[in-house]
Amino acid sequence: MLDALFRPRSIAVVGASTDPTKLGSLPVKFMLGAGYDGELYPVNPRASTIQGLPVFSSVKAIGQKVDLAIIAVPKEFCAAALADCAEAGVAAAIMFTSGFAEVDTAGAMAQLEIAALARRTRMRVLGPNCLGVVNFAEGMVASFHPAFALTEKRAGRIGLASQSGAFGGLSYSLARERGLSFSYCVTTGNEADVDIAECVSFLADDASTDVILLYLEGCRNGPALVEALKTARRNGKRVVAIKVGRTASGAAAAASHTATLAGSDAVFDAVFRQYSVYRAQTIEEFLDVGVACALGKPPLNSSLGLVTVSGGVGVLMADAATDLGLEVTPLSEATQARVREILPYAGPRNPIDVTGQVVADPKLFERGLELALAEGGFGALVAFTGALPRNPEHAPMLTGVYASLRERHPQVCLISAGLSTPQFRDELGALGIPSFEDPTRAVRAAAALHFFARRVCEPAVGEKRSLPSLPGGPIGEAEALRALGAAGIPVVEAHLATDAKSAVEAARTIGFPVVLKIASPDILHKSDMGGVLLGLASEAEVESGFGELLARARRAHPEARIQGCLLAPRIESGMEVVLGTNFDPVFGPVVMVGLGGIFVEILHDIALRLAPVGIEEAHAMLRELQGFTLLEAARGRPAADIDAVARAIVDLSSFALAHAHEIVSCDINPFLVLSKGAVAVDAVIVRKSGKEQA
Amino acid sequence: MLDALFRPRSIAVVGASTDPTKLGSLPVKFMLGAGYDGELYPVNPRASTIQGLPVFSSVKAIGQKVDLAIIAVPKEFCAAALADCAEAGVAAAIMFTSGFAEVDTAGAMAQLEIAALARRTRMRVLGPNCLGVVNFAEGMVASFHPAFALTEKRAGRIGLASQSGAFGGLSYSLARERGLSFSYCVTTGNEADVDIAECVSFLADDASTDVILLYLEGCRNGPALVEALKTARRNGKRVVAIKVGRTASGAAAAASHTATLAGSDAVFDAVFRQYSVYRAQTIEEFLDVGVACALGKPPLNSSLGLVTVSGGVGVLMADAATDLGLEVTPLSEATQARVREILPYAGPRNPIDVTGQVVADPKLFERGLELALAEGGFGALVAFTGALPRNPEHAPMLTGVYASLRERHPQVCLISAGLSTPQFRDELGALGIPSFEDPTRAVRAAAALHFFARRVCEPAVGEKRSLPSLPGGPIGEAEALRALGAAGIPVVEAHLATDAKSAVEAARTIGFPVVLKIASPDILHKSDMGGVLLGLASEAEVESGFGELLARARRAHPEARIQGCLLAPRIESGMEVVLGTNFDPVFGPVVMVGLGGIFVEILHDIALRLAPVGIEEAHAMLRELQGFTLLEAARGRPAADIDAVARAIVDLSSFALAHAHEIVSCDINPFLVLSKGAVAVDAVIVRKSGKEQA
Repeated sequence: MLDALFRPRSIAVVGASTDPTKLGSLPVKFMLGAGYDGELYPVNPRASTIQGLPVFSSVKAIGQKVDLAIIAVPKEFCAAALADCAEAGVAAAIMFTSGFAEVDTAGAMAQLEIAALARRTRMRVLGPNCLGVVNFAEGMVASFHPAFALTEKRAGRIGLASQSGAFGGLSYSLARERGLSFSYCVTTGNEADVDIAECVSFLADDASTDVILLYLEGCRNGPALVEALKTARRNGKRVVAIKVGRTASGAAAAASHTATLAGSDAVFDAVFRQYSVYRAQTIEEFLDVGVACALGKPPLNSSLGLVTVSGGVGVLMADAATDLGLEVTPLSEATQARVREILPYAGPRNPIDVTGQVVADPKLFERGLELALAEGGFGALVAFTGALPRNPEHAPMLTGVYASLRERHPQVCLISAGLSTPQFRDELGALGIPSFEDPTRAVRAAAALHFFARRVCEPAVGEKRSLPSLPGGPIGEAEALRALGAAGIPVVEAHLATDAKSAVEAARTIGFPVVLKIASPDILHKSDMGGVLLGLASEAEVESGFGELLARARRAHPEARIQGCLLAPRIESGMEVVLGTNFDPVFGPVVMVGLGGIFVEILHDIALRLAPVGIEEAHAMLRELQGFTLLEAARGRPAADIDAVARAIVDLSSFALAHAHEIVSCDINPFLVLSKGAVAVDAVIVRKSGKEQA
Repeated sequence: MLDALFRPRSIAVVGASTDPTKLGSLPVKFMLGAGYDGELYPVNPRASTIQGLPVFSSVKAIGQKVDLAIIAVPKEFCAAALADCAEAGVAAAIMFTSGFAEVDTAGAMAQLEIAALARRTRMRVLGPNCLGVVNFAEGMVASFHPAFALTEKRAGRIGLASQSGAFGGLSYSLARERGLSFSYCVTTGNEADVDIAECVSFLADDASTDVILLYLEGCRNGPALVEALKTARRNGKRVVAIKVGRTASGAAAAASHTATLAGSDAVFDAVFRQYSVYRAQTIEEFLDVGVACALGKPPLNSSLGLVTVSGGVGVLMADAATDLGLEVTPLSEATQARVREILPYAGPRNPIDVTGQVVADPKLFERGLELALAEGGFGALVAFTGALPRNPEHAPMLTGVYASLRERHPQVCLISAGLSTPQFRDELGALGIPSFEDPTRAVRAAAALHFFARRVCEPAVGEKRSLPSLPGGPIGEAEALRALGAAGIPVVEAHLATDAKSAVEAARTIGFPVVLKIASPDILHKSDMGGVLLGLASEAEVESGFGELLARARRAHPEARIQGCLLAPRIESGMEVVLGTNFDPVFGPVVMVGLGGIFVEILHDIALRLAPVGIEEAHAMLRELQGFTLLEAARGRPAADIDAVARAIVDLSSFALAHAHEIVSCDINPFLVLSKGAVAVDAVIVRKSGKEQA
């Protein structure tokens, strides 16, 4: 679909100029330098040659098939230039020009016209306000960012997709400094037409890309992004994302930066967890994990071996590993004894502190590492060599040690930490050993590789089921519970009584004590008006309770439609859980779980996923909760039925999906979890208004 | 006290060798290179000159006053060498040699002898297993670490104290790469005599040191460390610490690395908070904050201005600032309008996105920054300039912009972020502007400077009061409550009844309902044996309850001394808080506060401080709690009396200090906090055994 954008064989540069420093001249200069061998057509009505190439007065005047047009003219000439391209049958255009939706309303209107033109003519448009595309294998530099000035035809296997141009350029520069090579870079800017999801989708299907680095501020088309991420995972590609606007200040800044719909950051975070995207918090982490993915091997398990020339750094790395969920498993006593034989002063446990002794004899370092690799059972190993790689005598010896280890252990996940040189780093990189100067960052890279190794295979997703339609009009509690019951969620046995007499009969059927609740589709917060009576123990209490609730409801909500009262058995025990669904404007139905009370209200301790959710993912949600241990058995308390909650999450997610067109939200609060089974005790479903359904 | 160690005027090097690569030869080489102008005496029985200096056969043979001896002989000769030094009247010795307590029991025994010699002769000993001391102003390099090979007489104002030698050398190397200069470096190794607290104390009192970088694995003398940290704060010095062994794996690794008593990491963390020590988690953060302290100005408030050439990086920085507790306050509408006048495409709010426009005209950048500084009211400002400083044309222009801003705003806290060069970094450093390549790290540096600015003045500490002695023998609940009441803590009115009749009388006095609890100094966990009856509403219930509790106690604890039952009024409301004290083996009495129930049990949400605690610090403890909002007013709930909790913390800390010699711990659980006032409902005090008191 986006081939014309990423792999054009002929490019018109509209706004190329005889001044080689101008925006429109730079791509021509960069591509000539990079050896792009497709056709290059500078377009300028007032010049005859530019950088040695013949110039055309318009795109139409070229008279040849043009795959891609670069538009680098002032804002006021953009519309005409685009129209010219479309008429000439150009397949795709890139608009560098800024001053559109990111600046003011007039700009936003002009951008809408660009979008309309793209839809009408089917010419794909990237930008405006973007820094374009680079295809490194072909030396195709459709960008003016100075970071691409010295591009050579040297392709790597990292694809970079960024909504921000400056961020893309910066990340590329930093990555190049660290010796990384790329397949493609693309920046999407204001996304009048082509959006970030399409670019991720392109990279996810591109055979020359293994790792996708993604910078996001928001997303216009959530489902498309999810599909692209699924494709990436299915194709074994690792996606590292940085998504800014996590905080209120950040979100406000993002809103004023691009005109993209930001969406809820918590939902983005859920999407990343769900589709195995590693979320980086800083540029440094973004690139570190990129380096690890590009060079490193997948760890076999979560145990981390640490070898160090400094005991102190060993402790530091052990702390970091534990923080990141890796296990610093000690070597067996027998192996420790063998380490001590080789290195008398060593700390042999794990971290394996080989001490400064190895400076005198790097063979000792190799034998220590070999022992750890052969007998430690580690999924990955980080070796800290201090300043040794900076020493011109020691560096080649160390490289030799790593090369011979790699020969004996071709698939092991090895990471180097310590002061380094570009040469040492690149030699290790060629051996599939990422290296980091900071030891904590090396450990974090191991944890990131473990993150990907753990989630390579797609977990089973929930099924999309067809469910009975919801009743018309606002939905009362009784209907809500019934609808959820029909979706497979265990619900309390609730009876709707329309008068006191039938209430007493229902109570007799249920058995005392009972709970009595006002039943009205117009009263969502029953407790606030005293609309719930707990533990009524006799027929007399039920009878008088019925009258009292009706009276209270009429006083508090004179206009509400009152259906009567709902009766349910009183459930004395169980752990309170809150389940819910919400319709996210970017991604659609989202399902939520949290523990009741302060966990949700004070600590905001909830887990989110997009619907549908599979059973494995539902369990992962529960394990994410800070309060998860409350569900497990503890002193004098049996374990809660965690499976029952997970199944309810799965069923609620199917329910949310089946009714996505008609409901805004559904809250089950509380969902009482017993030691065997669970039950929804109260439920509120909010229907979309007619406008929202449309 | 440690002058001979840090500022010796004459140094004997025992074990200097004619082979210039040997451990003992390196300090001689390094000092000759660095231009040390004190006396230098190589000691070696089998050589006549070493590196051009005359050699002595023993320290005694020198015949001159020797301030410091460096001991670099094999382990088996160390004792004799030290004795020789002591007899010759040497004031201090540094032992490089390893193989002592860090290796095995024999080594530990040998180290005890070194300690005994130091005590006996009053010669101070640094090490063994250490990398020594460097005094940069004097070119005094009493170390063999290669990082000090190229030391010049160039003193800066940072002092580095590290328990780990390799860590110290590494940190120094990394800091030098970043252009930092030091006053002293000292590594303490096994601490047979001189310990880390003494070294911090030296630096805290040293006029040439402004910033102290501290690496800790544990501490032998907590109170001395606290005193040193207090001195540092009083003298306006900023202390940045990295303390490893936070996690179980890390602590295990630390235990096998040095022989120092580790102590509880949570208590170290409390000490750092209490004495304004910035705790870094990684080497990178350690040095970043060191750079910020060495070069930066203190922020005036917690509002952070962000100026950026990339909108995306602006959002990223806004997120980071919010995470770190800084406020990204928007510019006023009027100022935003003025920013837009200067920079038409700018995002004018805050972050102030000056966009790529400034590449063409750096004056625009200066005017944008000037507006932000003059009108933003920011306590600090971080400016991200992307890759511009790497451009040989742009860098001098940017430096010029900063220089002229600095002239107009001499005291403002300015931090630069973005790709850089050593020259650009050093020129900005000379202007008092720290610079960081990574924008998130630049924001973190601003937050660290704010941490120090907020806590420069010492908060009032709690008073050390004299309190009545505790009764002899094990302490029952009644005595515990009485003792706490005497310390000023509000306690429930409790009556001890020895028989059912007096229990009924007491209940009548208190008023119904009452709580009845078994009273025995031998039963600490009353609830576990059903030893508490809540809400007894009548005389009959009290009478039968008394008999029932005694019967249960006799069944569950036949050997316990039963004093009778305790009666107290039933308090229906109040927020449950847990207060406690503990005797930490490193630091002494520690006071703890947490919210009751799951906050303490599941979330481990507690705050700690060393006793005594002042009222301001007590409030800081409460604000640290995750569940703090529960104490504040909320929908339908009045605020709890936070002052009453804070006062109780202060009084409990005085209590802990006054009884430090006799109690192990005291727990008040629950301490019920009402909307006005609070009351301790239950208390357990555990007395030290005779052995612990000694």
